Amino acid sequence: MAILAGDALLTEAFNIMTERPPGRNWGEGWALIDVVNRVARAAGIYGMVGGQVVDIESEGKEVDLPTLQFMHTHKTGAMLLVSVQAGARLGGATEEGFKALTRYGERIGLAFQIADDILDIEGKVEFLGKTPGSDRSKKKATYPSVVGLEESRRRAGELVERAVEALSIFGAEADPLREIGRFIVTRNS
Amino acid sequence: MAILAGDALLTEAFNIMTERPPGRNWGEGWALIDVVNRVARAAGIYGMVGGQVVDIESEGKEVDLPTLQFMHTHKTGAMLLVSVQAGARLGGATEEGFKALTRYGERIGLAFQIADDILDIEGKVEFLGKTPGSDRSKKKATYPSVVGLEESRRRAGELVERAVEALSIFGAEADPLREIGRFIVTRNS
Repeated sequence: MAILAGDALLTEAFNIMTERPPGRNWGEGWALIDVVNRVARAAGIYGMVGGQVVDIESEGKEVDLPTLQFMHTHKTGAMLLVSVQAGARLGGATEEGFKALTRYGERIGLAFQIADDILDIEGKVEFLGKTPGSDRSKKKATYPSVVGLEESRRRAGELVERAVEALSIFGAEADPLREIGRFIVTRNS
Repeated sequence: MAILAGDALLTEAFNIMTERPPGRNWGEGWALIDVVNRVARAAGIYGMVGGQVVDIESEGKEVDLPTLQFMHTHKTGAMLLVSVQAGARLGGATEEGFKALTRYGERIGLAFQIADDILDIEGKVEFLGKTPGSDRSKKKATYPSVVGLEESRRRAGELVERAVEALSIFGAEADPLREIGRFIVTRNS
């Protein structure tokens, strides 16, 4: 918790520094400032660190689905989402394109974490790089432990489908993103 | 050390993100990006965290003057300097003004820390908000322990004089900075 507090406070400073006052135009540098601001929020209190705090506080407790979804979308989902948004912003995406890529990023972010939970049950140690079953031995709440293995698989698959759907306004140039989405639920490591 | 490692790595991300590629102009937002970059460097590995690491590693050891100066300029001096530079940059200082304020910031940064070391010996608990003598009981290297109390006083005074000298290109509008400089060595808390 001391480490997380330090991480959170330091990161919050970068969030505050890069907040854009309403109506103020930062000119050419604005895209980069926006990205730095989003990374600070995704990493700190409102993202990774916040999700990690809830995760630690939930260990050994009964966790409901909204709490689990909060942990998943914040702990890993937020950083995954912002990595998509950063490319969109710095690449000069239109507002419509940015929104579509945001929906894509949110959906693959959650799908990634559900797939991770499933791999902890079904994965093989030689691919995983860690011992499967570690979530259960730590009594961690996971998608399979809350909604069951079959339902977890169905939800991960559906999220990836909806992530790919969000890319419908793009042509073949978005194929790498479609492939990344599908890889998330088919990977074995 | 685990806390410092987390702080350092998170902060380093903001340093890397806001590094300006040579020759690239970020336009209107550039001043803010430059400030964020300087804050990241002052807070992380190359500043506060770096100084704190050397401080921890030096506890209980014989420390020479260059090491002590490294700790002082990094642990507290870097953040003090960047707070001066941030105002200069965002206020649209000329290159000459920015350099002058940088020299001012470096000098009051070191003077502040020497004054702090002196207060730990001479300060009164009712003004200090902490028990004087805590540096000696922790066997911490300080300016008085390395160069003596009289020489520490002389150096702090000289640094403040040289800080005020650095402001000579400014008129009365820099009087608050001159006052702050003098306050640093006359304060008792």
